[in-house]
Amino acid sequence: MLTAQIIERAVATALEEDAPWGDLTSTAFLPAGATARAELVAREAGVFSGGAVFAAAFALTDPQVSVELGAADGDAFAPGAVLAVVEGSARSVLTGERVGLNFTQRMSGVATLTARYVEEVSQTGARIVDTRKTTPGLRAFERHAVRCGGGFNHRFSLSDAVMAKDNHLAVLAGGDASELTAALRAGIARLPHTTHVEVEVDRLAQIEPVLAAGAHTIMLDNFSLDDLRRGVELIAGRAIVEASGGVSLETVRAIAETGVDVISVGALTHSARALDLGLDVRVG
Amino acid sequence: MLTAQIIERAVATALEEDAPWGDLTSTAFLPAGATARAELVAREAGVFSGGAVFAAAFALTDPQVSVELGAADGDAFAPGAVLAVVEGSARSVLTGERVGLNFTQRMSGVATLTARYVEEVSQTGARIVDTRKTTPGLRAFERHAVRCGGGFNHRFSLSDAVMAKDNHLAVLAGGDASELTAALRAGIARLPHTTHVEVEVDRLAQIEPVLAAGAHTIMLDNFSLDDLRRGVELIAGRAIVEASGGVSLETVRAIAETGVDVISVGALTHSARALDLGLDVRVG
Amino acid sequence: MLTAQIIERAVATALEEDAPWGDLTSTAFLPAGATARAELVAREAGVFSGGAVFAAAFALTDPQVSVELGAADGDAFAPGAVLAVVEGSARSVLTGERVGLNFTQRMSGVATLTARYVEEVSQTGARIVDTRKTTPGLRAFERHAVRCGGGFNHRFSLSDAVMAKDNHLAVLAGGDASELTAALRAGIARLPHTTHVEVEVDRLAQIEPVLAAGAHTIMLDNFSLDDLRRGVELIAGRAIVEASGGVSLETVRAIAETGVDVISVGALTHSARALDLGLDVRVG
Amino acid sequence: MLTAQIIERAVATALEEDAPWGDLTSTAFLPAGATARAELVAREAGVFSGGAVFAAAFALTDPQVSVELGAADGDAFAPGAVLAVVEGSARSVLTGERVGLNFTQRMSGVATLTARYVEEVSQTGARIVDTRKTTPGLRAFERHAVRCGGGFNHRFSLSDAVMAKDNHLAVLAGGDASELTAALRAGIARLPHTTHVEVEVDRLAQIEPVLAAGAHTIMLDNFSLDDLRRGVELIAGRAIVEASGGVSLETVRAIAETGVDVISVGALTHSARALDLGLDVRVG
Amino acid sequence: MLTAQIIERAVATALEEDAPWGDLTSTAFLPAGATARAELVAREAGVFSGGAVFAAAFALTDPQVSVELGAADGDAFAPGAVLAVVEGSARSVLTGERVGLNFTQRMSGVATLTARYVEEVSQTGARIVDTRKTTPGLRAFERHAVRCGGGFNHRFSLSDAVMAKDNHLAVLAGGDASELTAALRAGIARLPHTTHVEVEVDRLAQIEPVLAAGAHTIMLDNFSLDDLRRGVELIAGRAIVEASGGVSLETVRAIAETGVDVISVGALTHSARALDLGLDVRVG
Amino acid sequence: MLTAQIIERAVATALEEDAPWGDLTSTAFLPAGATARAELVAREAGVFSGGAVFAAAFALTDPQVSVELGAADGDAFAPGAVLAVVEGSARSVLTGERVGLNFTQRMSGVATLTARYVEEVSQTGARIVDTRKTTPGLRAFERHAVRCGGGFNHRFSLSDAVMAKDNHLAVLAGGDASELTAALRAGIARLPHTTHVEVEVDRLAQIEPVLAAGAHTIMLDNFSLDDLRRGVELIAGRAIVEASGGVSLETVRAIAETGVDVISVGALTHSARALDLGLDVRVG
Repeated sequence: MLTAQIIERAVATALEEDAPWGDLTSTAFLPAGATARAELVAREAGVFSGGAVFAAAFALTDPQVSVELGAADGDAFAPGAVLAVVEGSARSVLTGERVGLNFTQRMSGVATLTARYVEEVSQTGARIVDTRKTTPGLRAFERHAVRCGGGFNHRFSLSDAVMAKDNHLAVLAGGDASELTAALRAGIARLPHTTHVEVEVDRLAQIEPVLAAGAHTIMLDNFSLDDLRRGVELIAGRAIVEASGGVSLETVRAIAETGVDVISVGALTHSARALDLGLDVRVG
Repeated sequence: MLTAQIIERAVATALEEDAPWGDLTSTAFLPAGATARAELVAREAGVFSGGAVFAAAFALTDPQVSVELGAADGDAFAPGAVLAVVEGSARSVLTGERVGLNFTQRMSGVATLTARYVEEVSQTGARIVDTRKTTPGLRAFERHAVRCGGGFNHRFSLSDAVMAKDNHLAVLAGGDASELTAALRAGIARLPHTTHVEVEVDRLAQIEPVLAAGAHTIMLDNFSLDDLRRGVELIAGRAIVEASGGVSLETVRAIAETGVDVISVGALTHSARALDLGLDVRVG
Repeated sequence: MLTAQIIERAVATALEEDAPWGDLTSTAFLPAGATARAELVAREAGVFSGGAVFAAAFALTDPQVSVELGAADGDAFAPGAVLAVVEGSARSVLTGERVGLNFTQRMSGVATLTARYVEEVSQTGARIVDTRKTTPGLRAFERHAVRCGGGFNHRFSLSDAVMAKDNHLAVLAGGDASELTAALRAGIARLPHTTHVEVEVDRLAQIEPVLAAGAHTIMLDNFSLDDLRRGVELIAGRAIVEASGGVSLETVRAIAETGVDVISVGALTHSARALDLGLDVRVG
Repeated sequence: MLTAQIIERAVATALEEDAPWGDLTSTAFLPAGATARAELVAREAGVFSGGAVFAAAFALTDPQVSVELGAADGDAFAPGAVLAVVEGSARSVLTGERVGLNFTQRMSGVATLTARYVEEVSQTGARIVDTRKTTPGLRAFERHAVRCGGGFNHRFSLSDAVMAKDNHLAVLAGGDASELTAALRAGIARLPHTTHVEVEVDRLAQIEPVLAAGAHTIMLDNFSLDDLRRGVELIAGRAIVEASGGVSLETVRAIAETGVDVISVGALTHSARALDLGLDVRVG
Repeated sequence: MLTAQIIERAVATALEEDAPWGDLTSTAFLPAGATARAELVAREAGVFSGGAVFAAAFALTDPQVSVELGAADGDAFAPGAVLAVVEGSARSVLTGERVGLNFTQRMSGVATLTARYVEEVSQTGARIVDTRKTTPGLRAFERHAVRCGGGFNHRFSLSDAVMAKDNHLAVLAGGDASELTAALRAGIARLPHTTHVEVEVDRLAQIEPVLAAGAHTIMLDNFSLDDLRRGVELIAGRAIVEASGGVSLETVRAIAETGVDVISVGALTHSARALDLGLDVRVG
Repeated sequence: MLTAQIIERAVATALEEDAPWGDLTSTAFLPAGATARAELVAREAGVFSGGAVFAAAFALTDPQVSVELGAADGDAFAPGAVLAVVEGSARSVLTGERVGLNFTQRMSGVATLTARYVEEVSQTGARIVDTRKTTPGLRAFERHAVRCGGGFNHRFSLSDAVMAKDNHLAVLAGGDASELTAALRAGIARLPHTTHVEVEVDRLAQIEPVLAAGAHTIMLDNFSLDDLRRGVELIAGRAIVEASGGVSLETVRAIAETGVDVISVGALTHSARALDLGLDVRVG
């Protein structure tokens, strides 16, 4: 789902940002003919993501540089693993290095963090999903990284699914349950028939009126573990149940064990740290 | 240094990413005429950054929405502080919300982390600087956030200053000191006279030959505290001294106390977590 | 859902296409100071669409030109109706004329054709929806026009809902029913939980296995009226039912009366003729 | 005249519109390694246009997909004709299908309609030409399609030839014939010497003053057949004669037989219906 | 013919080129609140061009800066003339200065050189025109400047008029006169009826066959003065006559006196020197 | 430093400007299958620049056209030299010709003029540098051409080095020397440590306070030869010395002999005339 066109556009932008009129250092200090062989080496364990993006950083700098990937997106690796080998003009390799690393370090960081969450909820039946709390301009890349880590995606944007939140409910119905059902139904009737409707509730009492309106997913926002359990029972398979809020590596398993179907984790993308990957260059 | 043109371009890209053909939820569920008043509220303490970017997210969604900032970029704030007030069409406020938050949460996260580093080195004379390990496409924004936190910027890109690293030195001189000086001098002679030349060294013995070549800054990469001290003494004011590698909130003060001028910290931008800011909406 | 940003981009492209270096005729033949008042007049009855786009054609040519709309998008009008009044520099009015007309004639053409389909199925409970058979680059505009005519939208793109067609089913299961259910289930499990799944079937026997897999909508493709009726009975509310293929103004009511929920009509966008609207200019 | 650059830009825009973040269906339901062979088949007779554009839709989706054209632009074909064969990854073939079809169906529709007009006027010496009533953003494509159908192009834009219409004449001269000649002459003197000047007249009395000014083409707008004949006689070869207004497949031959040189037909581009071409996919 | 859209695009590109991430000097050295008043002063006599472009350089840098023009495009001025007054934030004025000057110095240089050519041929009836030898990306601006200097434009691009040159003639006919007429006629028959056809000849013998084919303009390329005169006599008003080649301020009047209609001068745009205009800033 | 990406973007823009919808002449008059061989021939002596840009003009028009360069950028050549050979479709060769020439004629013009300045100052130790007085949009190309001619570049933009000019000094200190030092120091302290600081002075008395502030380069603006000499003595190696103003081929050697390090020449880019290079086409 990360097409060549999407990769090329983002990498070209990054290269222009990092070298608007070339690499002063390589040009002044390295002979035009010098070649280099470089290895992308893991300095810590993790899950790989962004191989094609890493390769594109060099291909767009200089089509003569070759990149051979040593791991596929989604592969777990140990410290010291060689994830890719880059060969070509020393100037070009050093010019593309930083952009290539900036993408794959960030993407592998997201994939690795996701994998830890996924591992935590193993065997519970809950899936870990991302949110719209992504880096501006890089949503497709961070979404891909979440999938590399074994997570699932939530709606991509405001345009492809409905998420009615507390703010929407407030204006819709002011808290009256029967009014809420009617208001939600009216809104749903205006939507394309292919639109999935998710509604966020912040107390158990909202569940029945929301179900009555025909919501496909109910998000239980900032519920206690007990209330999550009660929510799951109440909904009883009539809608998908999503838990959100207060999710961390410490709390995620207990949340999953309440029986919810989906747990959304903003931190996957808004607070993952870059993974430590380095490019070891051997100038030929 | 964050011009209106730069802000507009990045925010427009983010809005298209988040709503390529509008906000299904607001359009279906909120009356066209409903208005809302929303407050950007700090859920934790920090340093503010990105006020103008936050405002642009709403202005580009709907020029009728007003945004009044309650804090200036660089201001420290306590939990609960109201950093901005947004007023206008409820549909527009909810459509612009996520993009506005994604920018300012990230930027304030960088500013806040920077401020902690700056605080750590207070009174030592060392400055905290960023690196090129920034988010692809957002360098200008993250650089601005570093300045908001009291840090300084390093070179912006490969095109505006020289940084000769181990890889460059290897191909230049293969380790021979006199050869190194000559090779560096030859490269420097090819540069514009306005180009600042920084050279990375990984052992004390490289310092004299690099100074002899006329480097303006010497980066001591991954030096022990003792070696940093010796490096500072050796250089003795003949060049700016930068420390790099192994820098954390735990180690940074000791590094600063060795007498270096500049400490570069990749984590400022590649691993800052988003600050917890929320938009509390009151639909009118 | 047609934001100012989307309108501006498309109209600017059209203006560049129509006047890459200005309007030779106006510039050479009309005095710079001459003003004009022009009316957008309906030469036939129809449903209006594209008012804001029409206005943008003049605003982007010359911000001094004023456009006052005499009809809202979605309004029906009679021949002779004045849909908008344009006033300003004669040169600017004549320069923006063609682009403004090209958009609103096409959009009103789509809206008017849609309204005829919607009228045909009145009281049947079926909704008329568009398809992805839109003009390249103008999907958002044509979708908007369909809504103006009282129709509904189908999925916007390949990225926001699933439509498994005969080609997909062929590769999935080669025609074996139990295999089909399993294969569909496996695919659905890989999707975001917010993705609506529509499956196209071309014979009644496929319906049960598809329902068993959990499809949300079943499209009955090129079914006879009898088979449509049987399909509706078989599905019995367990999924939304869409009819597709062989839909025309002559056949649509009979199709709607079979009890299907949704009727998709490619012709709404791929074969609507432009409505006859003219700009009557009075040079002042 | 349809360069690779023009094709690529329009097709890339269409692909982004149709799959902003990939094809959910293919990715979830088809194995990565599955291949497909698909034929572009004519479901009705017509004239082909857009072969290179159709091919580009697949090439930009996936450079590995091969497209072999079975007809050249401008070729007439019978129902059932195989116009192209597409082979490659099943995912890629199904992802590019709709965009490829949307272009070539529309372009072949324009070419086919043009060919019918051209056929109607055969042996009369009149040429069928298009107008500026084209789809915003697709003018170069629709112009190409008109040529494929045996028609000719009119001026491309406001920037490359003069067309002084009733509105211009009104402001120029208020109806006084000698004044009109002088005003037109003054305007023509301001133009580049390479600019062709066409003047629209709506009554016979305007012809002499317009000829006296040196117009190269005179457009007789909405003239009766008798007046067209009189106009041709009056002009007597001193300018090219164009007929415009009220042109349909029913009226075009009689118009051509009046002796006019050029007949412009807005319907060629603003109201052509898409031709019925289908992609028959065989998944391998 | 220099629309706001064209100006904005080119100026925005230039500003990004000149300040990709802001003006280091103004930001570091000038207080945010300081204001400045600056005058655009002529350091030599000339003809003004580019007032709106100059203004846009400041408007795009900072919408608060005001620019009042003291001369209109096309006005002649003496040394010392104040052509514009700029007022606003000192930082903004100094940031936009260079881009504003780069445009108007170049455009006024072209206008001034053109005016000298036009002056040379006064009373001869010949017009001075530009060529396609313009600066890549700035054709519309340089064309405008030529008009400011009293010159006329030639065809804008390869797409809006025909110019058959020696190379085309060689492949068309290999030098045989009757063949040449036939070949030209065949080509002309393929063109839109609004296309002006100019043919370049390099000897008198080519004139009759070219006239016979119906060329609208004949370009006499690198003809001696005697041959130009003979060419004019031969053509005798049957086509526009253009002289080209060997044109300088020294030779242009003699060429004009041969009776040619049009003299094209590549130097107007490819070799004009920038006019000396300065911005005298008074910081408030 | 002129990457493929930078070249492609500028050349694509120029091709669109010169042929927005194709080359009417080639298409109408040349057979699709005709081939041509063309030579880029020097009509005068000079220094070559822009070989890769020239080649790109043809490659982007038609990837089948081959271009073989007969000279490298920076090579001096005599009149008659064949600088490149172009082979391929006659239509494509003639379509790309003008854009290719416009770039290389201009770039070689800059390189040749630079080489004359460089030759003038040979053996003096002074380097010839360019300024920001470049053609909007073409700075990278003109900078490259300056290097081809043996010159050096100055700062690229406002974003990569400081140049404090008279206007800045006026607002900083109002003329008081001690105040000037303090103000400059304060500004320098706000800059990245990698920023080179150049200060323009217009009288000898400013030199000491500027040196005291730590400027890296001092520009002596419009100094007499005597004052230049005194300036060099005063500065005595404590900063780089740049001379600016009143530089011409007549004056440059005397300026160089005063001992300055750097001489900046705006005319290199703002007033170089295009070199006379022609494309001699032989249609096959």
